[in-house]
Amino acid sequence: MNKPNIAILGATGVVGREITKIAEELDLEFNEIKFLSSARSAGSKVLFKGKEYIVEEATPESFDGIHIVMASAGGGTSQMFAQEIVKRGGLIIDNSSAFRMEKDVPLVIAGVNDEDLRGHKGIISNPNCSKSQLMLVLEPLNKKYGIKRLIVSTYQAVSGAGLAAINELKADTEAYLKEEVFENKCFKKPISFNVIPQIDVFCENGYTKEEMKVVKETKKILHLDDSVKISCTAARVPVFNGHSEAVDIEFELNVEPNEIRDILKDAYGVEVIDDIDDFEYPTTRDANGVDPVFVGRIRKNLAFDNGISLWCVADNIRIGAALNTVRICKRVIEMGLWG
Amino acid sequence: MNKPNIAILGATGVVGREITKIAEELDLEFNEIKFLSSARSAGSKVLFKGKEYIVEEATPESFDGIHIVMASAGGGTSQMFAQEIVKRGGLIIDNSSAFRMEKDVPLVIAGVNDEDLRGHKGIISNPNCSKSQLMLVLEPLNKKYGIKRLIVSTYQAVSGAGLAAINELKADTEAYLKEEVFENKCFKKPISFNVIPQIDVFCENGYTKEEMKVVKETKKILHLDDSVKISCTAARVPVFNGHSEAVDIEFELNVEPNEIRDILKDAYGVEVIDDIDDFEYPTTRDANGVDPVFVGRIRKNLAFDNGISLWCVADNIRIGAALNTVRICKRVIEMGLWG
Repeated sequence: MNKPNIAILGATGVVGREITKIAEELDLEFNEIKFLSSARSAGSKVLFKGKEYIVEEATPESFDGIHIVMASAGGGTSQMFAQEIVKRGGLIIDNSSAFRMEKDVPLVIAGVNDEDLRGHKGIISNPNCSKSQLMLVLEPLNKKYGIKRLIVSTYQAVSGAGLAAINELKADTEAYLKEEVFENKCFKKPISFNVIPQIDVFCENGYTKEEMKVVKETKKILHLDDSVKISCTAARVPVFNGHSEAVDIEFELNVEPNEIRDILKDAYGVEVIDDIDDFEYPTTRDANGVDPVFVGRIRKNLAFDNGISLWCVADNIRIGAALNTVRICKRVIEMGLWG
Repeated sequence: MNKPNIAILGATGVVGREITKIAEELDLEFNEIKFLSSARSAGSKVLFKGKEYIVEEATPESFDGIHIVMASAGGGTSQMFAQEIVKRGGLIIDNSSAFRMEKDVPLVIAGVNDEDLRGHKGIISNPNCSKSQLMLVLEPLNKKYGIKRLIVSTYQAVSGAGLAAINELKADTEAYLKEEVFENKCFKKPISFNVIPQIDVFCENGYTKEEMKVVKETKKILHLDDSVKISCTAARVPVFNGHSEAVDIEFELNVEPNEIRDILKDAYGVEVIDDIDDFEYPTTRDANGVDPVFVGRIRKNLAFDNGISLWCVADNIRIGAALNTVRICKRVIEMGLWG
């Protein structure tokens, strides 16, 4: 089997570093690999499979001979380079929101809608992080019971906002405990010991872009039509890493909590932790650094007729971005959808 | 006007201290006042209106000649003393959950259902804290548009679990930042930089008692019948003080966000902070130490036909417990419902 030449774009960011780590863990096959970043971060070093690489500044020419680019460099950078990559016969798996809702761009969660990869025209999008974990949980349930209505409230970690945000939570917390004044830069309000009901910018309808991504991307990935009603509130909590979500679902068909538990126990990428007699349920920190989406607190929803409530937790950097990017890359190779 | 003799039971706890502070701020009228606690805390001192009081151990005889008791001493203590108080002709305003759902016990939020006070038989209950803030918001909306369905996800501070929990969040956070091991006592899981989807014990239906309080107490306070469907997920976040809630409401009648804003601007105890163009919305820390329930992020709910989503934040110790207790006490005095 031919092996592709691979590039990691945005290699020095939170997600880029994690992509590198997971590519090594999952033993991603490749012929050659290179690490790219902005001019500012170029020159730094990356250790990959025991070999040291120098991060290079990304230019259009960086993509000559590259078959697959795993990109996590922000929407502007992806927009700048995507056509350059495609023009050279390459394929970009992109973590930004730049292309997610474009018609010709498959929005894929590995293990959920892999078949959508076949339609790619050189660009594949990785969904927004708070969604990936939710899709792995909802896909098998939707297949069996049909989702009619969905209400999600998120408890999102600062890691979703990047390295600077992680450092800011630490510095803000330390300052608060010492009763010192702290000026926030990454967040519009103090993040230490606080909850901020805003992630990303606001849309005209009063929702944030983050919330509308849950609405729109869920429909695209699960192939739901507009009769399915979805609402979301996304809030930032003072947690370093790991997104939690309170999820209320109304199904077409009647469903019991035990059936949900059984289906999710067999679901790809999902692990059920749900024994309230022993106080077993997932908390955010349980998910840190590991692959599964953890689900617990599965119970009848009291507000809907065929309703289920559940709590799901995942490492947003891994599952929501890096892990899915590498998984997509592996699927693309296995399915022969490159070069 | 006659003035009552007043006792504060549980005077040394988080809520008891706050009751004392607010009774002074709101200039509560009384003839005599005394401060009571368990044997363990008896002997400590309380400064009230410039005078020092010694906290006494609560015994049945402590309530001789007392007209109104403001109690925040846990369900067991309230259960032990309530009949002793009533027997002596006194009235107890209780913060515990011991009597809340009893038929003859008014469950009151001052400014929401004051008229229910008239039915008291010596015991008045103060609702669970996560609810008080919600009721002040929902009551005027229910009156005008009729609540049909309600889904609440809470982001609750540790102060709701008492002084020890506040100290534990601080100690756990400090240990985490120093990478030291910390053993939690108040919480089943680490509380620093984590979200715990359990508050209070579990019921048979998979909900926690805290969540079922939202379901049951909301119906009792707002006089809603069982055709109204309510569900709740209650989670503990690493915040010292202040509960936040993501609230999704389906109404009987069609309603626009601007109408909701106008109604809430005039509502008792509520303050609207809602201008997304200027990133104005309430965060948890904004509510710390002040009286209003803050509401923001008011928007059409995309999952319901006549739906509204909103975000509400309040100082749970004040509004959820101490402030409401003192407000009820004042109403009882004004309405002549004592002695």
